[in-house]
Amino acid sequence: MSNYLNYSYEQLKKFCNDCFMKFGFTEEESNIITDVLLLSDLYGIESHGMQRLARYHKGIEKGLIKVNAKPEVVFETPVSAVIEGHDGMGQLISHKAMNIAIEKAKKSGMAVVTVRNSNHFGIAGYYAKMACDAGLIGLAFTNSEAIMVPTFGRLAMLGSNPIALAMPAEPYDFFFDASTTVVTRGKLEIYNKLGKPLPEGWALNAQGKGSTDAKDVLANIVAKNGGGIMPLGGATEQSGSHKGYGYGMFCEIFTSILSMGMTSNHTHTNGKGGTCHGFIAIDPNIFGDAAAIKEHLSTFLKELRESPKSEGADRIYTHGEKEIFAKADRLKNGINVNINTVAEMFDMCKYVGLDPVQYLGDVKFDKTADSSYK
Amino acid sequence: MSNYLNYSYEQLKKFCNDCFMKFGFTEEESNIITDVLLLSDLYGIESHGMQRLARYHKGIEKGLIKVNAKPEVVFETPVSAVIEGHDGMGQLISHKAMNIAIEKAKKSGMAVVTVRNSNHFGIAGYYAKMACDAGLIGLAFTNSEAIMVPTFGRLAMLGSNPIALAMPAEPYDFFFDASTTVVTRGKLEIYNKLGKPLPEGWALNAQGKGSTDAKDVLANIVAKNGGGIMPLGGATEQSGSHKGYGYGMFCEIFTSILSMGMTSNHTHTNGKGGTCHGFIAIDPNIFGDAAAIKEHLSTFLKELRESPKSEGADRIYTHGEKEIFAKADRLKNGINVNINTVAEMFDMCKYVGLDPVQYLGDVKFDKTADSSYK
Repeated sequence: MSNYLNYSYEQLKKFCNDCFMKFGFTEEESNIITDVLLLSDLYGIESHGMQRLARYHKGIEKGLIKVNAKPEVVFETPVSAVIEGHDGMGQLISHKAMNIAIEKAKKSGMAVVTVRNSNHFGIAGYYAKMACDAGLIGLAFTNSEAIMVPTFGRLAMLGSNPIALAMPAEPYDFFFDASTTVVTRGKLEIYNKLGKPLPEGWALNAQGKGSTDAKDVLANIVAKNGGGIMPLGGATEQSGSHKGYGYGMFCEIFTSILSMGMTSNHTHTNGKGGTCHGFIAIDPNIFGDAAAIKEHLSTFLKELRESPKSEGADRIYTHGEKEIFAKADRLKNGINVNINTVAEMFDMCKYVGLDPVQYLGDVKFDKTADSSYK
Repeated sequence: MSNYLNYSYEQLKKFCNDCFMKFGFTEEESNIITDVLLLSDLYGIESHGMQRLARYHKGIEKGLIKVNAKPEVVFETPVSAVIEGHDGMGQLISHKAMNIAIEKAKKSGMAVVTVRNSNHFGIAGYYAKMACDAGLIGLAFTNSEAIMVPTFGRLAMLGSNPIALAMPAEPYDFFFDASTTVVTRGKLEIYNKLGKPLPEGWALNAQGKGSTDAKDVLANIVAKNGGGIMPLGGATEQSGSHKGYGYGMFCEIFTSILSMGMTSNHTHTNGKGGTCHGFIAIDPNIFGDAAAIKEHLSTFLKELRESPKSEGADRIYTHGEKEIFAKADRLKNGINVNINTVAEMFDMCKYVGLDPVQYLGDVKFDKTADSSYK
C-alpha cells in the first residue's frame, strides 16, 4: 500500500490532541474530538477519521466553526431537548446532546434531542454507541451540506444524511451507521485522493447524468453547480431510489425540521454552516426485561451469521462486527493513512504552529495536498 | 388494461365489509380491516389491497389468524407498551396499538408500542397516518415471513420489513412507507399474476443467484428453499446492500426484538404465524411550536418539489404526494383490480357463503385463481 503511511493509534491521538488544544480547545474538549475521529479510523471508516481533519482545519480557519461556542439548551421537556449549537464544534455539541438524551432516557424511558447550528460531527455511530455503552438503544442522525440528488432531480437537496443505530448484544453490540446515499462524500474524497474512477451508480454530474469523475462531482457539489450522489437505491424508482430519498427525509426530519434549523439545501450557503443533528436514547427496560431482550437480539444476530452463505462468500456479517475486528487489528498493527491526508495533516499542524515531523515523521510529498476543502 | 376489472370504492368496501363480517368479525372490526385494505388500493399500492385478500382468507381458513382473539397489553409504562396479539387479525391489533401510542404520546410527549404474535397488518403507512391525522409524527414497522436475503447470504432471514413515517405538512402530509428490500413480496406477486419476468436486481434464486422468475422465487420463499428478495441497495456492498440489510435490522429491532416476539426467520414456520409490529408516536410540541415546525417541513417539501429536474423528468415528488393524487383519481374513476385477484375474491366470497356476482358482477375466468398463498 504505497499510497499509505502507517501510524500507531497513540501517535495519532497525541497529534490530534495537541493540534486541537493549539486551536484553542480545552484538554477535555480535545480528547472528545480526538476520540470521535480516531474511533472512525479504528473502525475502518477511513472517510471520517484523519481524512476529514482538513474539513475541521478549514472550518475553524474560515470561522465556520467557532472554537469558543457553548451549546445552549433552548427548549426541553422530560423526554426532549432542542440545542442551539452557536456554530461550535460538532463533536462537542453532539457529545453533550447525546449525554442529555441518555440522562433523560434513564429517567423517562426515552428521549429525543435535536440540535441546530452545529458543524460536521464525525461518525453518527459514535453517539449511538454512547447510548449503547450505557445499556440503552441509541440512534443518531445528522444532515449535512446538500449532496443527495432527489429522485428525478438534478440538484443536490439533502445531505448524505446518515442514520446510526446501536443496541447492546453479545458477543458484540449491534452497530449500524450508514448514509442514506449510496455512498458518502468521504468515499468520493478517497477515490479522488487515489485518482481512481468512481464505480457506476454512485454519482451524477451537473446535468444529472451518471458520472465516474470524483474530482468533477466534488467540485460541482462545492460550487452547487448541480449533480451529487444518488440516494441508496440508485437513480430509478425500479431500484428503489425513492426509498433512499425517503430515508434521507427521515434523517432530515429528526435533525433540521425538529430543531427548526437549516435544511441540508441551506446549510453551507452564504458563508454559513448550520448543520443539524438528532439523538435518541431508549431504555430497553420500558419493554420488560432488558437482559432478556439483549439475549433475544444476540440469538438473532448469531442465527444471521450462521445462516447459509451465497456461493463464493466467506461469511455473513452482522452490523458492528467488522468494526470490532478492524479496531483490534488497528490497535495492534497501526492505522494506514493516505499520503494526501498526511499532507493535509502537515498543513494543519504547521497552521497551529506545531512541527509535524515530531508527530508524523519526515515525510516527502510528491505534490502539495489536494483537498476538496479549500 | 384487459387484465383488470374496474370497481368503485363503495362497491369494494361493501364487498370487504360483508365478507369480513361473515368471517365472524364485528361490524366495527370489519370496518377497520376494510379501511386499511382499501386505503392501500386508493393510494395506488396495489400489492397490499385486494391483491392481499387471499392471504387473509387462507390465514383464517388455516387457523393462522384467529378471528376472536383479543390483543392484550402485557407490559407498559407512560411511554411504552408491549402487546400480545394472540394470533389475531393484524389490522385490529395494530389499530389498537397505534391508538395506545397516540394516547400516551399526547400525555408523555412520545411513546413506542411493540406487538408480538400478530399477523400481516396491511400497509405500515396506514398506522403512521393515524398518528399524523392526530397532529403527531407517526412511525410504523412490521416484520414478516422471511424474504430478505442478508448480504453474502443465500437464505431469506428478514422480512420485507417496511418502515413508515408520516408527519403533518401542507398542502399534504409527508407520508413515507417503504420496505427495506428493493421491492416487496407483493410486487413479485403482481409480476407473477401478470406472467411477466422480474427486472434484474430484485430477486435471488435458491442458490443465491439473480433470478427474474417470479413464480420460482415465490415458491422457494414459501418452501424456504433459499433465495428471496435483495435488500435495498442490491446484492453487493458497492451498491449499498449492507445498508438495506441494516434498515431491515432497524425494523426487526422495533418489532420482534423489543416485543420478545418471533424474528422474521422464525415466523410462519411449524404452522405458526407470529408477525411482530412496532408503532411510535411523537408530539412535535415537545420540540417547541408544532405549527412552526409544520410550516418548516412544508417549506422544505415545496423547495424539493420545485428544485431543478433531471433531463426528461416531469417533476420531482415528495413522499405522500403520489398517494394523494392516486386517491383522488380512484375515488372518481374507480379501482382497477387484476382479474386473478378478482378470481381470489370470488373464492373468498363463496367460502364465506356469499354470492360474489352480487358484489363483483358476472365475471368469466379463463382459469382458476393462481395464488402464491395456498
